[in-house]
Amino acid sequence: MKRSIYLSSTDIEEAKRIFDDAIKSRLERRNTEIIPSESAYGRVIAQPIYARRSVPFYPSAAMDGIAIASNKTKGANEHKPLLLNTDDYIEVDTGDPIVDPYDAVIMAEDCIHSDLGVSIIKPHVPWENVRPIGEDVTEGELLFAMEHVLRPMDISVLMAANQLSIEVYKQVSIAIIPTGSEIRSAYDNVEIGDIVESNSYLFKGLAMEAHALSSTYPIVKDDFDEIRQAVEDAVKKHDVVIVNAGSSAGRDDYTVHVISALGKVLIHGLSIKPGKPAILGMIGDVPVIGVPGFPVSAHIVFEEFVTPLLLKLNHYPLLIPERIQAYSTRRIVSSLKSKEYIRVKIGYINGRFVATPLARGAGMMMSVVKSEGYALIEKNREGVDFNEVMEVQLNKSIIRIKNTLLAVGSHDLIMDVISNQFERSSQPYHLSSVHVGSYAGLLALSKKESALAMTHLLESNGSYNTESIRKLFSTEKMALIKGVKRIQGLIVEKGNPLDIQTIEDLTRLRFVNRQRGAGTRVLLDHWLKQKDIDSEKIIGYDKELTTHLAVAAAVANNVADCGLGIQSAATIMGCDFIPLGLEDYDFVCYADFLDDPKMQLFLNCIRSEEFKDVCKSLGGYDTSASGEVFIYD
Amino acid sequence: MKRSIYLSSTDIEEAKRIFDDAIKSRLERRNTEIIPSESAYGRVIAQPIYARRSVPFYPSAAMDGIAIASNKTKGANEHKPLLLNTDDYIEVDTGDPIVDPYDAVIMAEDCIHSDLGVSIIKPHVPWENVRPIGEDVTEGELLFAMEHVLRPMDISVLMAANQLSIEVYKQVSIAIIPTGSEIRSAYDNVEIGDIVESNSYLFKGLAMEAHALSSTYPIVKDDFDEIRQAVEDAVKKHDVVIVNAGSSAGRDDYTVHVISALGKVLIHGLSIKPGKPAILGMIGDVPVIGVPGFPVSAHIVFEEFVTPLLLKLNHYPLLIPERIQAYSTRRIVSSLKSKEYIRVKIGYINGRFVATPLARGAGMMMSVVKSEGYALIEKNREGVDFNEVMEVQLNKSIIRIKNTLLAVGSHDLIMDVISNQFERSSQPYHLSSVHVGSYAGLLALSKKESALAMTHLLESNGSYNTESIRKLFSTEKMALIKGVKRIQGLIVEKGNPLDIQTIEDLTRLRFVNRQRGAGTRVLLDHWLKQKDIDSEKIIGYDKELTTHLAVAAAVANNVADCGLGIQSAATIMGCDFIPLGLEDYDFVCYADFLDDPKMQLFLNCIRSEEFKDVCKSLGGYDTSASGEVFIYD
Repeated sequence: MKRSIYLSSTDIEEAKRIFDDAIKSRLERRNTEIIPSESAYGRVIAQPIYARRSVPFYPSAAMDGIAIASNKTKGANEHKPLLLNTDDYIEVDTGDPIVDPYDAVIMAEDCIHSDLGVSIIKPHVPWENVRPIGEDVTEGELLFAMEHVLRPMDISVLMAANQLSIEVYKQVSIAIIPTGSEIRSAYDNVEIGDIVESNSYLFKGLAMEAHALSSTYPIVKDDFDEIRQAVEDAVKKHDVVIVNAGSSAGRDDYTVHVISALGKVLIHGLSIKPGKPAILGMIGDVPVIGVPGFPVSAHIVFEEFVTPLLLKLNHYPLLIPERIQAYSTRRIVSSLKSKEYIRVKIGYINGRFVATPLARGAGMMMSVVKSEGYALIEKNREGVDFNEVMEVQLNKSIIRIKNTLLAVGSHDLIMDVISNQFERSSQPYHLSSVHVGSYAGLLALSKKESALAMTHLLESNGSYNTESIRKLFSTEKMALIKGVKRIQGLIVEKGNPLDIQTIEDLTRLRFVNRQRGAGTRVLLDHWLKQKDIDSEKIIGYDKELTTHLAVAAAVANNVADCGLGIQSAATIMGCDFIPLGLEDYDFVCYADFLDDPKMQLFLNCIRSEEFKDVCKSLGGYDTSASGEVFIYD
Repeated sequence: MKRSIYLSSTDIEEAKRIFDDAIKSRLERRNTEIIPSESAYGRVIAQPIYARRSVPFYPSAAMDGIAIASNKTKGANEHKPLLLNTDDYIEVDTGDPIVDPYDAVIMAEDCIHSDLGVSIIKPHVPWENVRPIGEDVTEGELLFAMEHVLRPMDISVLMAANQLSIEVYKQVSIAIIPTGSEIRSAYDNVEIGDIVESNSYLFKGLAMEAHALSSTYPIVKDDFDEIRQAVEDAVKKHDVVIVNAGSSAGRDDYTVHVISALGKVLIHGLSIKPGKPAILGMIGDVPVIGVPGFPVSAHIVFEEFVTPLLLKLNHYPLLIPERIQAYSTRRIVSSLKSKEYIRVKIGYINGRFVATPLARGAGMMMSVVKSEGYALIEKNREGVDFNEVMEVQLNKSIIRIKNTLLAVGSHDLIMDVISNQFERSSQPYHLSSVHVGSYAGLLALSKKESALAMTHLLESNGSYNTESIRKLFSTEKMALIKGVKRIQGLIVEKGNPLDIQTIEDLTRLRFVNRQRGAGTRVLLDHWLKQKDIDSEKIIGYDKELTTHLAVAAAVANNVADCGLGIQSAATIMGCDFIPLGLEDYDFVCYADFLDDPKMQLFLNCIRSEEFKDVCKSLGGYDTSASGEVFIYD
């Protein structure tokens, strides 16, 4: 077997130039349609639009009062009011036409009514208090230049100015072709070895955001002829085609060969990470893009190449994502050979933005979902140091980031409960929690990388958390907020077929561990030491997972026989649970942060009856002290 | 006849509090539906969503290579490669499942292939190069908290995690009821006295932007019973109802009486300008808003009250419009009794934002269309001084404002031609022109309120523009850019029934003038002086309009018999034109601004063949010198 594992590695800016050149003639081809103005919201005008009727289209009263011929008002003054004959005027409301013989309006407040008529105390000049024809819109006036995106008031103006239909650019259409012999529809039953087709939903949504009409093809097997057939069909019917996966240079990667056979490959391989195995090509004048299969790669390649392409074809202005400068909470190593896109969690702590990298794998959808943006590390840079400023392209608004309470530390399901309470409250605040373990959480707080820490550190004297706070924050005034007491125990397969009962049993089975610094790991090591058990004797002691749920999932899926964790995780994954002991899962923040409205909301949440009820239904929690605050000077 | 012309005048913040209180119970009522996840883009989640399947849901290869049982790799090292038996491994691609008996992947680059099998030079530990179950998404994991607005990647995650349908909040529905006996559909033939119904299109678009579904009722006459009937029907079928116009307290204003009869009026009259005659009411638990008829008032009341209401009912985050601080180019007088919303044109000149107020009438749709935002002047303030900083709520992006060349000065139709050229260019720049007359344009340039001036000032020595530049910019290095020579003349009714031929004829007809400071006005006064004609003898000399088109429209509509202006305006309005002489319509900017990319684009436009062709087809222009630049030190 032979693999052709090498792609080229073109700079992204160079690739964009080449691609832009290739689509130039296509962009110049006008593709318009005439549609009713009343349904043209958000569409882009393809011809300058001129008013076909003035607004107002007749002289009209600018206020309520009486219409009069101005020459009949001559001579009126305060000392000698002029009585107007009832035949000489008519009552008018604002907007009423002022036509011959009238040419002025006397406002209601200036009219003295009597049985004989109306008296006035000053003369009026022609057109006084009259809106002239075309005061707002003049017939023949340019209303909108070409390329204008129509907003609600614009549609109003078109209707008033008698432009009932207009020429706009046609919405661009994009075909999405998912390929892969192992790919199955999300609606099918899937088995081990199958991969669920989910990228097409990402593309469809991103296409909508670029105002394009998308159609997703049925999944095509890894077969040159079948892919060629789909692509041939798609280029006939669409303005843009994307083929998802098979864009690399492996044995089953046919996309590049299909594009070569039908048209021209411009670029195969980009110096970006993730996203390297991308293909840019043209078949006739239809751009065809081979998008990599990993969701994060797919997201980056789509946003860098397909979104701007769709917007340009639609004659829309390009979207310019908001960028901020943020301090990195980690040293980040980056490839010299590639521009890197690193998903980051952004916090706004003490008036500055801090960015913590999330999982870097190209397959991690949730790293995009949980992120506030991509940190961009240019090619030829070795990385970013701890506390160095880096540029972050945001996918959430700055105001949302500022309104989010960033909590970093140990994982517990109650963080989800509190997050839901935040969202249901009428306040504009959000809770975002990052799970790195108790000790790393306290460290993050001490480095001002988070606003709140979650911790359950068992200390040598048998207490929880208090000594750690004293040590790490010796000169600061801190608040310890009691969270929950929770039961730690062994998560085992349903029915406990291996009859696991105590810590001693761990030496005779496949264990799965938590990462160093996690409170649960500290607890395990404490118990192993107490019972004098050598960790080297435990198979899987080195296999680290970062959440209780991941441990329970490993047991439920028979990847391991046992893990240490909390009851709620075992329950959710349908595992059995052997309780071993209670521990304190608490929160820590700087004492002066207790007054922050986000923190106030947090305290209200964990002190609420609703919180206690949900904990009860999850099982394994004691909430009797939840929300009690202790200050440490 | 009696009018009840007095409304109350409630502060807008107070009105919002009262309204929020009234809709509180309605907001707490859950109104949800279950829809397929694949069509849930942009919808708001009404229940926390947990993963129903892990991603990956089996251990899988993290890279291309071979799958092996890790215990078969023991003992391999660089000095003594280990030959793996072909029965002991299988080839795997990234993503392939790793199942019993395999528990590790050796990457392709570490495999030395031979006919006997694969040799390796290092041992592998269990799960090396294997993605664990749930690495990305863990079954049972909280994917999204409540109130989350679903983005494209989120839909991908839902499909991959086997959440194929979800509970979301129902989209709120709004009924739009246009009322008024003089109101006609834009599709009807209209006559003098009719008003075209165009506000409903504004409301429909604004409702769409707030993710609401709208339906517009047929136009209802000013009749208590008919309006009541429409409102009764609408509150049964919709979540929110707005009644447009009839919201004041005049003789034909029934809205307040209808709401009183069917429910409760909370507020009638706001201390805002425009927008005072608004009504906030409740019929049952349906909010009913009486929106004023003038389009600008309607826009403000909708955005202040209806948009937030719709967003809240939809569980959407409120839109927070961007605000900037801008220097006022005028003294603005404001009412002490009202918060004022003043449409402004924003320029970004020499690194600061400058705001010029547009027409203030509540009926001026185009003032909203042309504006970049509303300057907000709080109640109890007398106004804003020249060069004082004021707060502006933007309706365009800051980047667009910075990319716009702001030209202020005399009006000519070629500004529209150049604007279209800007839009058709591939550059991200825009041209925005404000028409205040030549002299005011040069003044604005001198005060750094614009980047470019348009001028055609006839000077005492018979030259155009040069002396004015020397006078106004004596210490600056300026650039004069030749624009067009254009024919000025008399615009008269088609067929010239009054046989108008010369300036002398103006004393025997109804004239319409341009504003003071306009080059055309200067020209008229120059000719009047030359011919010794007293301006007091010209009927309509005091009637001022601000554009050539408005003058031509006045003649075309028989409001006046004659005006002075340019040929292209006469042509567009179907008038006849009596040429009187050529004049120079030129541009002025600071010399160092010539290098600005926006100015470069401007020069390219006026020097292009396309520009000359369009001028030719408009008629009355000489473009032989267009784009020539003269520098004045």
